[in-house]
Amino acid sequence: MINFDNASTTKISKKALEAYNVASEIFYNPSALYAPAMQSKSIIDNARTYILKYLKGKPSNSLVFTSSASESNNMVLNSVVVRKDKKYLIGAGEHSSIFAKAENLRQNGYNIQYIPLLPNGAVDIEKYKAMLDEDVAFVSVIHVSNETGAINDIKTLNALAKGVNKSILFHSDGVQALGKLNINLTDLGVDFYTISAHKINGPKGIGALYISNPTKIKPLIFGGGQEFNLRAGTENVAGIHAFYEAVKNLTIKDLKLHKQTIINSLRGDYVLVSDDKCVDNIISICFKGVRGETILHIAEQNGFLIGTGSSCNSKAGVNRVVSQLVDKNYIQGAIRLSFDNDVSKDDCIKLCEVINNAVKTYREKIGR
Amino acid sequence: MINFDNASTTKISKKALEAYNVASEIFYNPSALYAPAMQSKSIIDNARTYILKYLKGKPSNSLVFTSSASESNNMVLNSVVVRKDKKYLIGAGEHSSIFAKAENLRQNGYNIQYIPLLPNGAVDIEKYKAMLDEDVAFVSVIHVSNETGAINDIKTLNALAKGVNKSILFHSDGVQALGKLNINLTDLGVDFYTISAHKINGPKGIGALYISNPTKIKPLIFGGGQEFNLRAGTENVAGIHAFYEAVKNLTIKDLKLHKQTIINSLRGDYVLVSDDKCVDNIISICFKGVRGETILHIAEQNGFLIGTGSSCNSKAGVNRVVSQLVDKNYIQGAIRLSFDNDVSKDDCIKLCEVINNAVKTYREKIGR
Repeated sequence: MINFDNASTTKISKKALEAYNVASEIFYNPSALYAPAMQSKSIIDNARTYILKYLKGKPSNSLVFTSSASESNNMVLNSVVVRKDKKYLIGAGEHSSIFAKAENLRQNGYNIQYIPLLPNGAVDIEKYKAMLDEDVAFVSVIHVSNETGAINDIKTLNALAKGVNKSILFHSDGVQALGKLNINLTDLGVDFYTISAHKINGPKGIGALYISNPTKIKPLIFGGGQEFNLRAGTENVAGIHAFYEAVKNLTIKDLKLHKQTIINSLRGDYVLVSDDKCVDNIISICFKGVRGETILHIAEQNGFLIGTGSSCNSKAGVNRVVSQLVDKNYIQGAIRLSFDNDVSKDDCIKLCEVINNAVKTYREKIGR
Repeated sequence: MINFDNASTTKISKKALEAYNVASEIFYNPSALYAPAMQSKSIIDNARTYILKYLKGKPSNSLVFTSSASESNNMVLNSVVVRKDKKYLIGAGEHSSIFAKAENLRQNGYNIQYIPLLPNGAVDIEKYKAMLDEDVAFVSVIHVSNETGAINDIKTLNALAKGVNKSILFHSDGVQALGKLNINLTDLGVDFYTISAHKINGPKGIGALYISNPTKIKPLIFGGGQEFNLRAGTENVAGIHAFYEAVKNLTIKDLKLHKQTIINSLRGDYVLVSDDKCVDNIISICFKGVRGETILHIAEQNGFLIGTGSSCNSKAGVNRVVSQLVDKNYIQGAIRLSFDNDVSKDDCIKLCEVINNAVKTYREKIGR
């Protein structure tokens, strides 16, 4: 199967899996007091230092390993949304782990306000500016949309918030940015930043949260004092080492030609949600009169894996994010193509032919 | 190094690591809509069904995979401790992931009451009975103490609670019971039960929570609807498969002779905290006039890994649980020997000689 659903998850690389196996030999509990446990501890410290440096964090910042981006995102919201007299601004296109937690908090009486989106899925900066005031305590905006690939200008968004009130905390979910954009957290100036291993050919079950200032956050999981008392549980040493290996092997690839090839090859009545301000590796397209799931299954029969949107959103039937961006006649026909450079130009062309035929056949069959 | 710190963590077995590697090939996101993703999903379903059956749960019960026992424990407390007019009873010897979360809740105004311990570390059933009343909403008692190996009679404790009020929810942390006792959750009748993979030669970073009735709990991590909407985050398919493999290979070993050998071989002025009502694989001993950490390091120089207590408790200096059980002159001298049948009788004898000499030498050196 040729994988055009890369934003959903990736296969662990040989190197990362090997790192997992090697580190599995160092099985000692990092909290134990004998010397061999220091080996486990130094695997974690090494990964932490390397990834923090890769993200251009300062040594005085923290990076806490979690089990996933979903955990990191929940940890931030759980920690900062604590006052009912404050306003919390959340991008309307956030990943479901931010959205579902925010909705839970909203239902519990917290003042959660969603920042509207532009047609490409990025937050609307003008509307955001109008929402910022002295009551705002926190902002969360995804760096790269997992649905459309839209890049949010996190540096500007954070600076605007801090300009209104220096104490506004800013979080960005960087899962789809890692390995796709050059990330400089010191330059972005954010307080929290979420990353995940399994989107960059690392293992599933490992994420991290960058924390500019550890006094601004509290644990989601309390216990044995691991991770600077911010995240309890015996550390997943092998998973952390494999995450490190995955980050070490990251190279930002130029996928502009693939994107162009796909856009040039698609036919039919569709809305191209992802514009040229989006990353090149995610393309969101909405067809009229065809269900995205139908296209997905026909693509599958022809050897291609594609998405109808993020996996986390797929099960709901209608894509929560894309449905904010296109006319209602196009919502059901949402597909997402996301890829790495392991696919060829020919793969792109062939996939588009399959999609074009699927759209044509399906629309003919139902007589539209 | 000969490992007498097995209760802290275990090395992943060859079979479990192989299972991890095999399942890593099935990298598809279980939430994706194409057929290959069903392979990922069926790995998870298979593990869930097997482990639930191993624990003698009913098919109508749930088993939710988490990242660790610490997460499972936090999930339960976070979910059930919600009313300030109710009483929550927590064993005074719980694992730090229960204790630290309970303390956090107590500091936030919840009525947390700790059930006192008997000298071996089990909860005092008579005192527990006196604490049970109509205001109690929840009880959490560890199945096997991670500090002393004391076995709590969970079936009786749960029945006593339900006898007072059928709606009292009962949780037990079964991390140290799994693979050491025959567990029958239907017979125990508990509402929630926590287990972990890395204590039974599975991978770190995977735990689970047994849930008798899913309507009685809410997520700690919100998001994409995974795990029956109870635990979000892309599933750690490989880790779950390795957990399954570890459970599949569990055999309950008879370690009575090892325990007897150790007890017969130890000399000096000490309190044997673990009595014959404890499991055989954990022995907690407190020496007078010697620091446990000193003994640990001398053991280490002689090729043995031992603990001063649970790793999660070790860093605090004084063992929170053991300090409730012995005279203050013995607290600093706490050590914990925990073992599997990969150690021999000779190993037990040799380790005791090392400990006896360490105690003697240390006490002589400081002239006591």
